[in-house]
Amino acid sequence: MFVKPGSLLAQINSPEELREVDADKLLDVCTELRQYIIDHVSVFGGHFGASLGVVELTVALHYVFNTPEDKLVWDVGHQAYGHKILTGRRDQFHTNRQYGGISGFPRRAESHYDDFGVGHSSTSIGAALGMALASKQKGELDRQHIAVIGDGAMTAGMAFEAMNHAGVSDTNLLIVLNDNCMSIDPNVGALKDYLTDITTSPLYNKIRSEVSSMLKSIKTVAPQVQQVASTLETSMKTALLKQSNLFEALNLRYFGPVDGHDINHLVSVMEDLKHIPGPKLLHCVTTKGKGFKPAEENQTKWHAPGKFNKDTGEINKTVHPTPQAPKYQVVFGETILELAKQNEKIMGVTPAMPSGSSLNIMMKEMPDRALDVGIAEQHAVTVSAGMAVQGMVPFCNIYSSFMQRAYDQVVHDVCIQNLPVVFCLDRAGFAGADGATHHGAYDLSYMRSIPNLVVSSPMNESELRNLMFTATEHNGPFSIRYPRGQGVMPEWRTPMEKVEVGTGRKIKDGEEVAILTLGHIGNYVVELQERFEAEGLNPAHYDMRFVKPLDGNMLHEVFSKYKKVITVEDGCIMGGFGSAVLEWMVDHNYTSSVKRLGIPDEVIEQGTQLELQRYAGFDHEGILNAVKEMTEVKTIYSK
Amino acid sequence: MFVKPGSLLAQINSPEELREVDADKLLDVCTELRQYIIDHVSVFGGHFGASLGVVELTVALHYVFNTPEDKLVWDVGHQAYGHKILTGRRDQFHTNRQYGGISGFPRRAESHYDDFGVGHSSTSIGAALGMALASKQKGELDRQHIAVIGDGAMTAGMAFEAMNHAGVSDTNLLIVLNDNCMSIDPNVGALKDYLTDITTSPLYNKIRSEVSSMLKSIKTVAPQVQQVASTLETSMKTALLKQSNLFEALNLRYFGPVDGHDINHLVSVMEDLKHIPGPKLLHCVTTKGKGFKPAEENQTKWHAPGKFNKDTGEINKTVHPTPQAPKYQVVFGETILELAKQNEKIMGVTPAMPSGSSLNIMMKEMPDRALDVGIAEQHAVTVSAGMAVQGMVPFCNIYSSFMQRAYDQVVHDVCIQNLPVVFCLDRAGFAGADGATHHGAYDLSYMRSIPNLVVSSPMNESELRNLMFTATEHNGPFSIRYPRGQGVMPEWRTPMEKVEVGTGRKIKDGEEVAILTLGHIGNYVVELQERFEAEGLNPAHYDMRFVKPLDGNMLHEVFSKYKKVITVEDGCIMGGFGSAVLEWMVDHNYTSSVKRLGIPDEVIEQGTQLELQRYAGFDHEGILNAVKEMTEVKTIYSK
Repeated sequence: MFVKPGSLLAQINSPEELREVDADKLLDVCTELRQYIIDHVSVFGGHFGASLGVVELTVALHYVFNTPEDKLVWDVGHQAYGHKILTGRRDQFHTNRQYGGISGFPRRAESHYDDFGVGHSSTSIGAALGMALASKQKGELDRQHIAVIGDGAMTAGMAFEAMNHAGVSDTNLLIVLNDNCMSIDPNVGALKDYLTDITTSPLYNKIRSEVSSMLKSIKTVAPQVQQVASTLETSMKTALLKQSNLFEALNLRYFGPVDGHDINHLVSVMEDLKHIPGPKLLHCVTTKGKGFKPAEENQTKWHAPGKFNKDTGEINKTVHPTPQAPKYQVVFGETILELAKQNEKIMGVTPAMPSGSSLNIMMKEMPDRALDVGIAEQHAVTVSAGMAVQGMVPFCNIYSSFMQRAYDQVVHDVCIQNLPVVFCLDRAGFAGADGATHHGAYDLSYMRSIPNLVVSSPMNESELRNLMFTATEHNGPFSIRYPRGQGVMPEWRTPMEKVEVGTGRKIKDGEEVAILTLGHIGNYVVELQERFEAEGLNPAHYDMRFVKPLDGNMLHEVFSKYKKVITVEDGCIMGGFGSAVLEWMVDHNYTSSVKRLGIPDEVIEQGTQLELQRYAGFDHEGILNAVKEMTEVKTIYSK
Repeated sequence: MFVKPGSLLAQINSPEELREVDADKLLDVCTELRQYIIDHVSVFGGHFGASLGVVELTVALHYVFNTPEDKLVWDVGHQAYGHKILTGRRDQFHTNRQYGGISGFPRRAESHYDDFGVGHSSTSIGAALGMALASKQKGELDRQHIAVIGDGAMTAGMAFEAMNHAGVSDTNLLIVLNDNCMSIDPNVGALKDYLTDITTSPLYNKIRSEVSSMLKSIKTVAPQVQQVASTLETSMKTALLKQSNLFEALNLRYFGPVDGHDINHLVSVMEDLKHIPGPKLLHCVTTKGKGFKPAEENQTKWHAPGKFNKDTGEINKTVHPTPQAPKYQVVFGETILELAKQNEKIMGVTPAMPSGSSLNIMMKEMPDRALDVGIAEQHAVTVSAGMAVQGMVPFCNIYSSFMQRAYDQVVHDVCIQNLPVVFCLDRAGFAGADGATHHGAYDLSYMRSIPNLVVSSPMNESELRNLMFTATEHNGPFSIRYPRGQGVMPEWRTPMEKVEVGTGRKIKDGEEVAILTLGHIGNYVVELQERFEAEGLNPAHYDMRFVKPLDGNMLHEVFSKYKKVITVEDGCIMGGFGSAVLEWMVDHNYTSSVKRLGIPDEVIEQGTQLELQRYAGFDHEGILNAVKEMTEVKTIYSK
C-alpha cells in the first residue's frame, strides 16, 4: 500500500537490505520514506511531525549500525515510524495504532528490531546503558548501544540520572540527541536555552576564532612569540573542548552540533563514532515535521494531527449537525481559568502537556500563574507542594499513566504533609490508540492507598466543574481523574457548586441488583436504561463520585437493599474502586455478591476506547451482560 | 540536658536570638553546637556525620537569613539536627527519633522553622522553587528561598528537573550545594567527578592564570599589543565564567567553591548573595563528620552509628550470649553473592544503598556485577530492565518507600515488557525510627496492581533464600519484600529450594478462625501459640507467601473450613494483602467474616517497629485480641 513497485523502499524489507543500497542512493531512500509516512498518516492518522523529523537519522542509524545486533532504543517512540517501516513492517504500517494492528510505539513483542518498548519519555539512555553494561559483562565488546532522545525528553530527571551513570561507565553507548526544540509543545527550561546557545554559537568555536585572529595579529606584530602563542592555542582548545560543555562535564564525549537532515554527513559522522570507544553524545539539530511545510510551521498542531489532505494540508474535521459535548480536557482548561479569575491563590502546573491538558487556555491569559515545567512529572508535583506551602492552591495536571512517575512526590511531598495540591489526572482509564504504556489503569489503586488524599472522579462535565471548585475549598490534597475525550453535556458551563467530600449520587432506585459506578463510565448505565427495561431488568444505579472517602451512608443503603452489586470502573480491578467497595462491605459485615467490572490484570494494547472496554467487559454490552448474569443467579453460591 | 548554663547555646532559643550574637562569637556557637550534637547522639543514637558536617552552614544560614520569613529547605533532612537545636528544640532534642518525640527529619507540623518535611532525597530545590514562585506571585520580592542539598542528592533526577526550571525562573532561589563527596556510602557518578574537578582546579582559574602569564610574556616582548591583549583577556574571562560551568549552563549563577567550615567567610559570602537577585548556587565543600575524628575517617560507618563512647569513639555493641538470627539484609547480601557465583547472569543494582542493603558484600567480590548507581531509583530500575533485555537477571534492591520513586519504571520498563528483573524491597513495613517518610507502607498495594509481576514476601531467612533462588528461574518480573532488621533463624544458611510460584504454606490447622499472614509478621502468630492455648483458642495459621498470584487452592481450603478469617500484613490495609484476599473471596462467592490487620490509613510517625505495630494493632497483643474478638462474635452480623 502506497509503496511504488520498483521504488527503493519496495525493495527494502529489512535493515540488512537497506545496508545493500549504494550510499549515493540514501537521499532517495529518505525522500521515499518521508513520502510513505505522509501518505499513510494523512489517511490513517497517528503521530506525524516527530517521525518526519528523524527520517535521515533513522536511515543513517540502520545504514551504519548492524541492527539488531547493535541495540537501538528510541526514546518515547512516536518518532519511530520510519524505523518500523524499514524493519519489516512496511506493509503492516496501515494498521498502526489500531486494535489488533501494530503499536504506535516500539514494542519488543512486535519485532526483534524493537530492542526496548517505550511510550513514556526519557527511558532510552538508562535502558541502552543497561544493555551496554550487560554486553560488557558478556564480553561482547564490539556491540554498539544507541539511544535516540529528544531535547524535550532530556529534561526529565531519569535521563540525567542515566547520564551521570553513563559518564563513569566504560561502555559502547552512543546517545543521539535529537534537538528540535520541541516536546509536543515547545520545549522549556534552562537546558533548552543552553542547547540553543551551543548550537548557534558554540563557546569553543567562538573563543577559538577570537583567539585565533588575536594570535594572528600578535604573530604579525611580534613574530618572536609564535611558539608561545601556539602552545597557548593548543592548551586552550583542549581545555575548552573538554570542559566547556554540559555533557563533557558529565564525562560524555560531545560531538556536534550536526545537521540532522544531511544524510551523507550523518552517515559519515556515525561511521567515525562507531570506532570511538566509550560513552558519547552526538548532537543533531532537526526540524520536527521536516519536509511537510504545514507541519514545520505549526509543530504542536501537527504532532498528531489526525487525518488530513496531504496536498492542501487541510486537517479533516468531523462536522456535527448538533451541538456536541466538549472534551473533558476543554472543561478542565476553561474551568481552571474561570476559578483562577475568582481566586488569586490558584496556580496551574503541567509537565509538558499545555495543549494536551488544555492548561494552555490559562497559560495564555495568565502566563505567570500557569506554568509548563517541561517533561518533569516529579518536579511538577514537588514544585506544586512548594507553592502550597506558601499559601497557593496549585492544580497539578498530569496524565494518569505519567503520574506513575511522580508517585513518591505525591506521597512524600504532598500527602504526608497534607498540603492542598489538586491533582487532575487526565487520560484516566483506557487511553485508546496510544496503547499499553498510556492507559491510565492503575491510579485508583496507587492513589487511594495514600493517607490524607481525597480520590474522586466526575461522571460528567458539570461534576468535573463541581469537583474542581470543591477542591479549591478543601484544605488538603485532592485528586480528580477523568478520561480522554468527550463528556455528555453540550451545555456544560453550569454554575459551580460545592460537593460534600465523600458523597455519591443516587441516579435511580431499582430491584435486586445495584450498579455502583465511578466516573464517566456511569453514563453507560444511564444509556442502557431502555435496554434494561426491554430485558425486564431494573438495576439501581449509584454514581459514587468518591473512592476515598467512600460514601458510607450510601453504601449502607446499597448493601442493605441489594444482595447483588456490580461495580464498574475504567481502571484496574486489582485494588481499585471495586476493591475499596469490597473492603467497606466486609468491614461492615455485609455479604452481598459483588461483581467487579474494570480493566483486567493483564497488559492491554491499543484500540479505540470502546474496543478496549468491550474487550475488558465494561462497555454497554458488558455491563448489560453482568446485570443479566447476576439476575439469573438467584442464590449465592458458597462452598 | 548537656547544655552548659551560661553558654552561648543556652541563650539561643531561636534564630532571632542567634542573630543577636556578635559575629566574632559565631565560632564559639559552632563549637558548642557541634559538641551538643556529639553529646546527644552518643547517648541517644541517631544520624551523626551529616549534621556535624553542616554545623557552620547551619549557623551561617540562620545568622544571615531572616528565618522563618526566609524559607529554608533541608534536603533529606538527617543533617538538620543543628537546625532543630537552634530553632527551639534544643531541650526536646533528647527525644529525637523516639516514639512520641521529635522527628529525625524536618517536619512542618513540628516547627514553623521546618518549611518543608523531608526524608527522601532531592526534593529541596523543587520545593524551595515552588515557594519562591509563590512569593513572586504574591509580590513578596524580598523573601529569600534556600535549598541545602548534598552532592549525593544532586544526582537524583528530580534535582536536575528542578534546576532546569529554576534556571529560567526569575526568583530569589539560593541552592547551597553541600559537597562532601558522600551519600551514606561514597557518592558515585560523573557529577561527583566533575565537582571534584572544579573544586580542585576550576577551569576558569586555570585558564585565566595561563592566559594571564601568557599575556604578560607577550606584553613584555611586544608591548604594542597590550590593548588587544587586554580585550582578549576580558572577553575570555566573561565567556569562561558564564559557560564553562555545569550550573551556569543551566543558567544558575555559580559561586564557589568555598570552605563550608569557615564560619566567618560563609557569613560574609551569604551576606553578599542575599543582595544578588535571581537563581544562584553556592558550592560549599564540607567534611561529613567534621570535628569528630573517627567519623571523619570512616564516614559510612558513622552516618548513623548508634550509641557510642564519645571519648574513645567506640561504638556500643550489644553482646548476645546465644547465636542471634541475622538481619534480613545480611541474608540478602550473602545470598545474592552465593547465587551470583553459581549463575553468571545475575547482576546486583542499588541506588546508593550498598551498605544499607548489604549489596556491598557482592560489590566487594564482584565489582563488575554489582553496581551502585547513585541516588537514582528510576535509573536503577530502567538500567536493570536494559540488562534483562540482554539476557541478564538483575536483582534491583530498593527500599520499599524509595521504590515509590521508580513506580513508573517498574510498570513501564519492566512489567509491561515482562522482563525478568528481581525487585528486592528492603525496609518493607514499618521502618522504625526514620518515621513517616521511610515506612514501607504502600508497596503491596502499588505493586500488586501491575500485570505480570509476582509479589512475594518471606516469613523467614530460609524463605528469603528460596524466593531469591526461585526468582532467578522465573522468566518474568518478581518482587520480594522483607522488613528492616532481624529474622528468626540463627542457623539461616539453609540449602536453597525452588518454591512453586503462587503457593503458601500451612503452618497449622485450627478451629473456627484462620489467620493468613504475609511475611515476617507471621512469626508473631507462631510465637503466640502458647498464649492461644492458654486462652483456649486454636486458630489455624497459613503463611501465604505470595500476594500475587494468590494460592487459590489454599484459599479454597481456608474459606471452606473457616467462617472467620484474619489477615495480617506489615503494610497498609488500603488495597494491600488483605484486600487481595477479599477480592478472591468475593470473586469465589465465599462469605466469611474477615478482619484485616495492617497499617491504618493515616500518617504514622517514628517509633520502634514494635511500638508502631502495637499502635497499628498487629503486634502480638493486637493479633491475639483480634482472634479473641472474632471468636466471641458467634454470629455474622448483617443489616
